[in-house]
Amino acid sequence: MWPESRESLPKQFIPLIGQRSTFQSIVSLVGDPAVFDTPVVITNFDYRFRVAEQLKEIGAEAVILLEPDRRDSAAAVGAAAAWVAAAREPTTVVAMLAADHVFEDGKQFAQLCAQASVAAAAGEIVTFGVTPDHPATGYGYIHPGARLARDPQVRRIERFVEKPDETRAREFIEEGYLWNSGNFVFRADVMLEELQRFEPEIASATAAAVSAAKKDLGFVVLDHDSFAKARKTSIDYAVMERTEKAVVLTADVGWSDVGEWSAVWRLSPQDASGSSLRGRAVAIDSSNLLVRSEEQLTAVIGLKDVIVVATGDAVLVAHRSQADKVKKLVERLKAEGRPEATEHRRNYRPWGYYQSVDQGSRYQVKRIVVRPGGRLSLQKHHHRAEHWVVVRGAAEVTLDGKVEHVHENESIYLPIGCTHRLANPGKIDLELIEVQTGSYFGEDDIVRIEDVYNRK
Amino acid sequence: MWPESRESLPKQFIPLIGQRSTFQSIVSLVGDPAVFDTPVVITNFDYRFRVAEQLKEIGAEAVILLEPDRRDSAAAVGAAAAWVAAAREPTTVVAMLAADHVFEDGKQFAQLCAQASVAAAAGEIVTFGVTPDHPATGYGYIHPGARLARDPQVRRIERFVEKPDETRAREFIEEGYLWNSGNFVFRADVMLEELQRFEPEIASATAAAVSAAKKDLGFVVLDHDSFAKARKTSIDYAVMERTEKAVVLTADVGWSDVGEWSAVWRLSPQDASGSSLRGRAVAIDSSNLLVRSEEQLTAVIGLKDVIVVATGDAVLVAHRSQADKVKKLVERLKAEGRPEATEHRRNYRPWGYYQSVDQGSRYQVKRIVVRPGGRLSLQKHHHRAEHWVVVRGAAEVTLDGKVEHVHENESIYLPIGCTHRLANPGKIDLELIEVQTGSYFGEDDIVRIEDVYNRK
Repeated sequence: MWPESRESLPKQFIPLIGQRSTFQSIVSLVGDPAVFDTPVVITNFDYRFRVAEQLKEIGAEAVILLEPDRRDSAAAVGAAAAWVAAAREPTTVVAMLAADHVFEDGKQFAQLCAQASVAAAAGEIVTFGVTPDHPATGYGYIHPGARLARDPQVRRIERFVEKPDETRAREFIEEGYLWNSGNFVFRADVMLEELQRFEPEIASATAAAVSAAKKDLGFVVLDHDSFAKARKTSIDYAVMERTEKAVVLTADVGWSDVGEWSAVWRLSPQDASGSSLRGRAVAIDSSNLLVRSEEQLTAVIGLKDVIVVATGDAVLVAHRSQADKVKKLVERLKAEGRPEATEHRRNYRPWGYYQSVDQGSRYQVKRIVVRPGGRLSLQKHHHRAEHWVVVRGAAEVTLDGKVEHVHENESIYLPIGCTHRLANPGKIDLELIEVQTGSYFGEDDIVRIEDVYNRK
Repeated sequence: MWPESRESLPKQFIPLIGQRSTFQSIVSLVGDPAVFDTPVVITNFDYRFRVAEQLKEIGAEAVILLEPDRRDSAAAVGAAAAWVAAAREPTTVVAMLAADHVFEDGKQFAQLCAQASVAAAAGEIVTFGVTPDHPATGYGYIHPGARLARDPQVRRIERFVEKPDETRAREFIEEGYLWNSGNFVFRADVMLEELQRFEPEIASATAAAVSAAKKDLGFVVLDHDSFAKARKTSIDYAVMERTEKAVVLTADVGWSDVGEWSAVWRLSPQDASGSSLRGRAVAIDSSNLLVRSEEQLTAVIGLKDVIVVATGDAVLVAHRSQADKVKKLVERLKAEGRPEATEHRRNYRPWGYYQSVDQGSRYQVKRIVVRPGGRLSLQKHHHRAEHWVVVRGAAEVTLDGKVEHVHENESIYLPIGCTHRLANPGKIDLELIEVQTGSYFGEDDIVRIEDVYNRK
């Protein structure tokens, strides 16, 4: 989903459809306390503050498990199941949902989960299957078999098939295969047993990572050394394609993995000309457009089936039928060493965010926003001095050991080499403009002396 | 040529083709001292510093006449002819060239001017005609008649025809009509006589404006009150369509009035796929694109015959065949009151430029660049305080009557209501970051107390 999502802020955290991110939508989907318990989020350590902020935005509570390392979905499912089995009941039924998928019909989705939980409680591992509407080559397929006696809508799985070519995909559709959505419902102890049977090392690594997990700033941080021993593989390879407990329930409730911009166009509200314009966008004599432009004014003339995504530092213009080439584009940009391939202009941090707004050969200007209670690390720079002008709120600045308060419309100068720390002791966001002067402005010219967020 | 050119910086000053603006290209075209005298530029008062700066950039000298008011081309030609007749010789041959046109073949163009000057010296008013390559509806046409005895390539003009519809345009092409390029060669006294004959009021108004002109900062400023009496009309209506001295010389030397982005694409160097990419642009599986992107990284996928022009605050995406609708778009943006319709983010001033780089509800950040010797007006603001951080060069700041020098990496605070002036006494550009705080940031909150550039 470049340029809106980049490695530093992946697509599950972007408001792709409507005002909420897919992560927020999924959390809301499981919000009915009659059906669901408090959700458990499992995410990479790097995204912890983003997850916490997004939950706060929608007023949702969740337990947040942090993966100290990227070990793929088998380890994530194993750890989540182990945590649930220990913290709740071993027989707790778990719906394991991808944070970057959508189910458009939330009510029906909750009913499906309830339906699946009956089969799961009886020991089955339920996969949500989706009836294909085109011969997609980007999904795995499921060949459904015999119907269960207790619920004929639930069927055993004859076999899983990897992403096919288009000819085979057409055959699969004729033969009644389903897409594998990659979302599951199972009993924690059943999943753990199956993982133990097929991947005992992953099972023990993740169990140990949960036992030795530490609470930190409200997060549950899985033990690094144990977790690192889990082999990188998907839950499909590790368990689903091998277990005899796999069953499938058709979940035709508007599922999408929002894999490319064309899916965002399909899922977004459209005007009379079939276009979806968002932000500062104007279109003339055009149809079936997706235009997203938050900062610049973007105008489109005389085009059809085109996607335009403009961000402060990068613009994508693509034919809708070729939106799948964005991945190839990003690979090329990475190979060319362009920072826009992976980095956002706005960088989220535990304490708020910063954004570069202007840069010259001997200076850089940043907008810095510190949330109430946020504290940056105590730090120093070898190659730059900084001028801070507070434009909103109040700053508590520690400068070479001395604490000063800087208020709206006041400024402070931080010479090269001084130790300093910025904090927001107030009740509203602190916004300041930082003017850096010097010869080098890389983020690696930060010597962190002390950090409340335990960063290096 | 929106969004690169806007009312505040019209297209003749933008580097549309290659690195130079069309104004700079035209000035270079008449640079051969064997054929041409020092050029005379006639331009609107508002563009005087831009013209001076662009001449300086290419190391060219020129006399600059300033129109104190917009009175259309008859008044401009009249004033230029009157100035040349008075300052040089009445019989001086003048080539009157539009600053926003291009002639691709400069050598042949100079030869044509020499050829035209022979007919002009003999009393003819020579128009450059262009052999049409398509039935354009946006140009006037010329019906060429009898060939002159002394130069059979020069033909009398049977008649001028206004912009036709496409059917008539096709007929014109079959009948050998030419486009009227709107560029002329004439003797100053001949043009003045004809103007006197057909439009005596314009002739006397412009003559008086030249007689009462004043030198100011190296410019020749035409007298406002006299010039304002010249009726607004084009030189075509005023003289060309009525005089019997009009002749035409075919000038097929790569002329274009660069009227829309599709013309820029045609005139620009293209790669193997027929695309012209400029700035930070990438294209995949595309052809015949024009992509211009100086600030953002712009990526195009799977498109053909598309124009993408990205500037810091506005992005245009248009099918090449519909580039003529940009005018309609700009009208709509104006009607909607969008500042991007007319204003640039970078604003040129006599002393340099400023550019807004960030804005919030209670602050605005600008980058200000002051050329060596530049002095802003002595001014004050009712609604904002300013923090200036010098990031390059040295500033001379007058603050409530006291002069201070602020050097690189130093800052100064200007409280609300203080009188202040910024100047660059140094030899290199002064760059500073201005952080404004307050409740209102409009350019009309500048009370000018004194100004070396005589602005109000």
